[in-house]
Amino acid sequence: MAPLDLTSLPRPSKDDATVGTMARGIVGSEILRIAAEIRERIAKGQKVCNLTVGDFNPREFPIPDPLREHITAALQAGETNYPPADGVLELRQAVQRFYERSLGLKYPLEGIVIAGGARPIIYGTYRSVLDAGETVVYPVPSWNNNHYAHMMDAKSAVVVTDAARGFMPTVEQLAPHLGAARLLCLCSPLNPTGTMIEPDALGAICERVVAENREREKQGRKPLILMYDQIYWVLSFGAARHVTPVSLVPEVAPYTVFVDGISKAFAATGVRVGWGVGPPTIIARMRDVLGHVGAWAPKAEQVAVARYLDDTAATETFLEGMRKSVEARLEALHKGFTRMREAGLPVQHIAPQGAIYLSVRFDLVGKGGLRSNNDIRKLLLEKANLGVVPFQAFGLDADTGWFRLSVGATSVKEIEEALPRVEAALREVLSSGA
Amino acid sequence: MAPLDLTSLPRPSKDDATVGTMARGIVGSEILRIAAEIRERIAKGQKVCNLTVGDFNPREFPIPDPLREHITAALQAGETNYPPADGVLELRQAVQRFYERSLGLKYPLEGIVIAGGARPIIYGTYRSVLDAGETVVYPVPSWNNNHYAHMMDAKSAVVVTDAARGFMPTVEQLAPHLGAARLLCLCSPLNPTGTMIEPDALGAICERVVAENREREKQGRKPLILMYDQIYWVLSFGAARHVTPVSLVPEVAPYTVFVDGISKAFAATGVRVGWGVGPPTIIARMRDVLGHVGAWAPKAEQVAVARYLDDTAATETFLEGMRKSVEARLEALHKGFTRMREAGLPVQHIAPQGAIYLSVRFDLVGKGGLRSNNDIRKLLLEKANLGVVPFQAFGLDADTGWFRLSVGATSVKEIEEALPRVEAALREVLSSGA
Repeated sequence: MAPLDLTSLPRPSKDDATVGTMARGIVGSEILRIAAEIRERIAKGQKVCNLTVGDFNPREFPIPDPLREHITAALQAGETNYPPADGVLELRQAVQRFYERSLGLKYPLEGIVIAGGARPIIYGTYRSVLDAGETVVYPVPSWNNNHYAHMMDAKSAVVVTDAARGFMPTVEQLAPHLGAARLLCLCSPLNPTGTMIEPDALGAICERVVAENREREKQGRKPLILMYDQIYWVLSFGAARHVTPVSLVPEVAPYTVFVDGISKAFAATGVRVGWGVGPPTIIARMRDVLGHVGAWAPKAEQVAVARYLDDTAATETFLEGMRKSVEARLEALHKGFTRMREAGLPVQHIAPQGAIYLSVRFDLVGKGGLRSNNDIRKLLLEKANLGVVPFQAFGLDADTGWFRLSVGATSVKEIEEALPRVEAALREVLSSGA
Repeated sequence: MAPLDLTSLPRPSKDDATVGTMARGIVGSEILRIAAEIRERIAKGQKVCNLTVGDFNPREFPIPDPLREHITAALQAGETNYPPADGVLELRQAVQRFYERSLGLKYPLEGIVIAGGARPIIYGTYRSVLDAGETVVYPVPSWNNNHYAHMMDAKSAVVVTDAARGFMPTVEQLAPHLGAARLLCLCSPLNPTGTMIEPDALGAICERVVAENREREKQGRKPLILMYDQIYWVLSFGAARHVTPVSLVPEVAPYTVFVDGISKAFAATGVRVGWGVGPPTIIARMRDVLGHVGAWAPKAEQVAVARYLDDTAATETFLEGMRKSVEARLEALHKGFTRMREAGLPVQHIAPQGAIYLSVRFDLVGKGGLRSNNDIRKLLLEKANLGVVPFQAFGLDADTGWFRLSVGATSVKEIEEALPRVEAALREVLSSGA
């Protein structure tokens, strides 16, 4: 019998009543839209220096050999059935040791939950903490907080940051919003900016959170929770030093959830192993929430990561190489844009600090007929074969000319070849005389 | 410096204000609680025939060799970066071919989304379709619909089914609830009962859904969506035949979402690859929802499953062996309980039809001081070293004496050794003369 042809089932539309309000209102990832546009150009045979996706090219950044071997061994050993809801015990113990050794924080095992990447930990934190209509505070640019707030039907209190302070919020900027908030989301090193929060600034914010919660406790009100996304924390460069809220202000520990995992540190975005670390009060609920969601890390990978994290010699060697590789790319961009700026071109950037990103401003709005960040993005793609993501993709409204440049999927050579093309494109805009 | 000791951070409590209302109200899995009790006994050196978890013992049920080899090869080939949000294209194509070949349903690629297991597909369906306060209809016993309804803040319309109809709902039972509902959840073969819905019964339900939606379309109301969980569909035994809503009533296709994956068919619960198949109107939103949740399948596993599914000779050979192994265990239970019933003992069961489960009734409430299913469960564990799960864990309130017996983690030998212990325990209850 011929199969039933269902290929012309209706496609989604904006006013489609099939799905619910939340799902209908979800905005697709701007980054993925741009990435698709680039894939199309590459498919047509064009060579694009792709600084868009926050991912790695496995040829440039393979996962650690021992990690791969441990996964293979775990599969061979039959680690193929359900992991426990909060993750394989050995991995939770390995994360416990890793945090004690590397961050000086000794958490109880009940304060550690494993998930299928760091993203479910963010989702789980939002979903466990917030009731509909409650307020979440976050700086912009930042990664996807706007989408998570939408999914929770939460109110967003947005603090727009600026380049002068490395796109990090200050306690003065946050304070007016904290009184009514249930969740404060910080990330350092920050996606998309590649900047890191200064210890003094973070310490002041944490002290404010503690003071706020002391007040709330007296009043019997729900506490303010701090989500601290440190998925990039092992990737820091130069003088920048990663700090945690809890080591700066231990009293903030009962209110702090860390978002972390292997995705970025070990170039393993597709391996899907992340973890949340925090007070058992919240972590236990995240385990229940994520258990029903089913956002579990595959079991063989969990067993393998446990073994790998305990091999401190191997991880340190890998991370050293990883830092060098990322830094070489960021430095190539840093030098190139410094040169352009010194040559009087309208570019500005922040020297590499952390993560796999560089913040660069192409100050071209109003020049050569360019009216928006998106115009600038298109120009760079078309004239310079350079793919970049405007800060609009990270919750910012204003056309400030700031962009995220991500280096995980490219080589130093590709960057060095692209820079003269960028310079030429900039000069062409300026000479167009608008 | 000594690490900061955070091990005495507060543990969760019922009236804890740290988390939100939804998270605080989540009920932990009854199955996992029971499973933990059994682990404790095993740790004390007791031998337990564990028929509780819906999982596999990899020594009894390893994943297919070629699947494991494909995963290893994919890792070696560097398939370690982000998969696309809707899954690796090759896997979506392989699922498309699998459904066309095996179920006679040709879906468009836009109607197929990959996730980290089947569980995220269930969560994604609920989350994409339902607004808070809307109604979901489901039969009980069934798996976790009560938990998902809680998470969505949805109203539950529960249809209690009975053994006479194989614990499947009829259109007559469902009809009164459908007018006000947005989602209807069916599962066949059914977890926990191991029973399968009859084609006529399913066809009548589908026709009712289509008629309901014709009316709603005229009135401009949102349609009723049918979630059809068929994660166990390749595991059917004897005369039982698996059917799909869409092949019975093609007009129901725009409203039907299939839940499926490799977890049960290929004994791969820990490999975390599942898929949803349905109208692009819903599937596209599920992709967006699950993308933000981050419930993605690991990339190497996606690539591997794509290769494996296309190897029809290998999959058919494996599935044949799988069916035989599961059936042998179910048949051992079937024979044992038939014998006991024929000997006049108060047991009843449904002959094996599908999945890895057998429904067994220990009709002991009111006998020998036993007052509830939980009393019976404890008796079987203590007197017969047999671990089973009462239907209460699947949303049923009444102490009917019905239990789920799951065979994936046990052997025929263990079952055959356990049956005389069960018989002795039953006789002991009866002879206690209450």
